[in-house]
Amino acid sequence: VSVSRPVRTGRRPGASSTRDEIAAAARAAFAEVGYDRASLRGIARAARVDPALVMHFFGSKEGLFREVMTLPGPLAAALAAVAQAPRSEVGRRLAELVVSGLESPELRGILLGRIRSAASHPEAAALVREVVERDLHALAAAIGGERPELRAALVGAHLVGFAVARYVVLVEPMASLTPEQAVDVLAPQFQQALVDPLS
Amino acid sequence: VSVSRPVRTGRRPGASSTRDEIAAAARAAFAEVGYDRASLRGIARAARVDPALVMHFFGSKEGLFREVMTLPGPLAAALAAVAQAPRSEVGRRLAELVVSGLESPELRGILLGRIRSAASHPEAAALVREVVERDLHALAAAIGGERPELRAALVGAHLVGFAVARYVVLVEPMASLTPEQAVDVLAPQFQQALVDPLS
Repeated sequence: VSVSRPVRTGRRPGASSTRDEIAAAARAAFAEVGYDRASLRGIARAARVDPALVMHFFGSKEGLFREVMTLPGPLAAALAAVAQAPRSEVGRRLAELVVSGLESPELRGILLGRIRSAASHPEAAALVREVVERDLHALAAAIGGERPELRAALVGAHLVGFAVARYVVLVEPMASLTPEQAVDVLAPQFQQALVDPLS
Repeated sequence: VSVSRPVRTGRRPGASSTRDEIAAAARAAFAEVGYDRASLRGIARAARVDPALVMHFFGSKEGLFREVMTLPGPLAAALAAVAQAPRSEVGRRLAELVVSGLESPELRGILLGRIRSAASHPEAAALVREVVERDLHALAAAIGGERPELRAALVGAHLVGFAVARYVVLVEPMASLTPEQAVDVLAPQFQQALVDPLS
């Protein structure tokens, strides 16, 4: 799924990029207002298509949510690869992955969409838990410290807190750090949560 | 403002406790669904009063939000007192304050209500930023490490992430930690953010 939006030419591009545009519009809507308040009509309007086309492609609002909120496969692989870094570099490697992910509109939309929908929509909460309890847990277990499930939850909480502070609440100076500065700030936090003694 | 709810006797208690009940109902509604989706009618129903009484006490939905989302004065004082702890104990002292605050329905409602409303309601985002940029910044500055504004933002992000993971998304094992275990988990994270070298 690409987030690039084709230049408007007055003619609809092919079906597959129309589908991508609907997906991008849906991701933006879920990230901005959460599952409940996002409407198929509004998403269709943002993608400049008929609402019926959204249903044609995705079946239902729930189907649309599930599909556009799925993390790209390469990300899970990249997360697993963090465990291969030298122990002293694990925090920085994960920070680089997290920051570059959140700087991409697609991944930021997926994460914020999940967080924002989690309160009212158990499916979204399950998707957030899934990242923590499956992907981050696998990472923590591969690194080999004690209590990997707790370490995974701590990293997940950091990640959620950082994303909300930087992109939703706009806490300074978090909001205006450059990506490089954000990596510098997150790296020791992740290192502590993943590798250092827990208390 | 007390969160205790008087036992129902079929007779309305005095005006001041009615006001408290409206405040508690409003806090719960803002925490659960955010500012936009919370309705004065629903809040009045939860507090078993006429919607007109909500307007009488608080003037407007905005006035109600501002008032029930205000952090109790003693909390700011308790936060300032954390800086008086020995440097090696600062993280634990703050963790104890944060966990005991979040275990109280009133304070949890205030924090989650602010976070959940922040996306759609700039006023709520400003209230979250205010805690970070004023109260936590004062704490970090009093402790005396370098870059207190960044340390305050880091602690704020931890706090938001912890609250969302434990009480909204219900990430395990975060959600089922006892308060004592939660303090043990948060203490080194806060110590790192407030006192240890930043990178």
